[in-house]
Amino acid sequence: MREKTLGILGGVGPLATVYFADLIVKMTPAACDQDHIRTIVSNNPKIPDRTDYILDRTKPNPLPAMIADARMLESLGCDEIAIPCNTAHFFFDEIQKNVGVRIVNIIEETLKFAHRSVPGLSKVGVLATTGTLQSDVYPHVARQFGIECVYPDADSVRTLMHIIYDQVKAGKRADQDAFFAIVDGMKADGCDAVILGCTELSVIYYELQIKRPDVLDSMTALAAACVQDIKGSVLL
Amino acid sequence: MREKTLGILGGVGPLATVYFADLIVKMTPAACDQDHIRTIVSNNPKIPDRTDYILDRTKPNPLPAMIADARMLESLGCDEIAIPCNTAHFFFDEIQKNVGVRIVNIIEETLKFAHRSVPGLSKVGVLATTGTLQSDVYPHVARQFGIECVYPDADSVRTLMHIIYDQVKAGKRADQDAFFAIVDGMKADGCDAVILGCTELSVIYYELQIKRPDVLDSMTALAAACVQDIKGSVLL
Repeated sequence: MREKTLGILGGVGPLATVYFADLIVKMTPAACDQDHIRTIVSNNPKIPDRTDYILDRTKPNPLPAMIADARMLESLGCDEIAIPCNTAHFFFDEIQKNVGVRIVNIIEETLKFAHRSVPGLSKVGVLATTGTLQSDVYPHVARQFGIECVYPDADSVRTLMHIIYDQVKAGKRADQDAFFAIVDGMKADGCDAVILGCTELSVIYYELQIKRPDVLDSMTALAAACVQDIKGSVLL
Repeated sequence: MREKTLGILGGVGPLATVYFADLIVKMTPAACDQDHIRTIVSNNPKIPDRTDYILDRTKPNPLPAMIADARMLESLGCDEIAIPCNTAHFFFDEIQKNVGVRIVNIIEETLKFAHRSVPGLSKVGVLATTGTLQSDVYPHVARQFGIECVYPDADSVRTLMHIIYDQVKAGKRADQDAFFAIVDGMKADGCDAVILGCTELSVIYYELQIKRPDVLDSMTALAAACVQDIKGSVLL
């Protein structure tokens, strides 16, 4: 049987997309090129900003470009599609409706991963863009697992947006002290763990090689789910 | 005017492809997602091994799959194509003949890069697969720049093939000591510089963040040429 091909609807942002593709390679049990998963990556950074549109509907709508890219990946024979961008999942149902293949949902996979890897998890902090926070995608799914989601305070959200947009997306070094202060602040406020619910924060997680069991990375959860589904096992 | 889209004909190998896509992002002068180059990556590790076929024509021929992938990238609107694999350039003319868009040639770009970055370069060591060495793609182009190419001795080539196939392509750590011993051996034999003429060796260059002016990486040269062409400038 032909092995599944993975489509990556990316570009949002471009560096997170590349690191996601890297995780797919590194999580795949393989002894030679041919053991690896075939992937087709649309790294399309021209897609309009997701948060901009969620907060202000007069801004350019990213949905048509994302639907076009999903359809392209389907037409190329991709058997499933991953979108390594949490904020884009505000548009998940609309994109899924437009293709016949499954889109692996980063929010669901992150919460399954959190539920599995932190026994007794009941309260989790969610670090994300204002677009993701405002669309409440995390609490909506978390309820199914009996998990309560807590958001950072307004100052911390502003700091996160600065790290995401003015540092990671701008190709600059992230302010690690500010980042870890927010993570630890949420732990001090009673969160059992903290979800990195934005793939630009996953870029920091990846570059700093963070190995804390109480920091749960959405991009890692999505990659693990895709590799497990296609290969039947995954290197974690 | 619409900015050019870059097609990446990859998978040969998959990790090198991801690192090449990463270089494209990191070499692009950009302040936000939308400043980045749109790329479409076919990371197709199912393509049969190039060296196997070059050395033994009874083995599966990788050319039909590479032509199919190049045509796919062209049909998706890619304006130029990069193949981050030196050995695949044995088939360059045949692939180029089958598409209407330009394929950026890694051998030419590496030698241009070498000529430009090492003033007075006259003798260069080429570290590559037996497939690339046997097909003599480097000396053929090097003559145009008045550069003489020197190959490693048989023992060193065996060691390189072990590093490329049993370490990098197998997801294992490369033997750095053996790698640098070959680089330094070629320098001691009178080479002005050494070209990493295999993108699995570029993986080592990338992971170790080698910053030696006498080590010239083919994957970096290819990425720089693509970004320069599309954006008019490049971060090096």
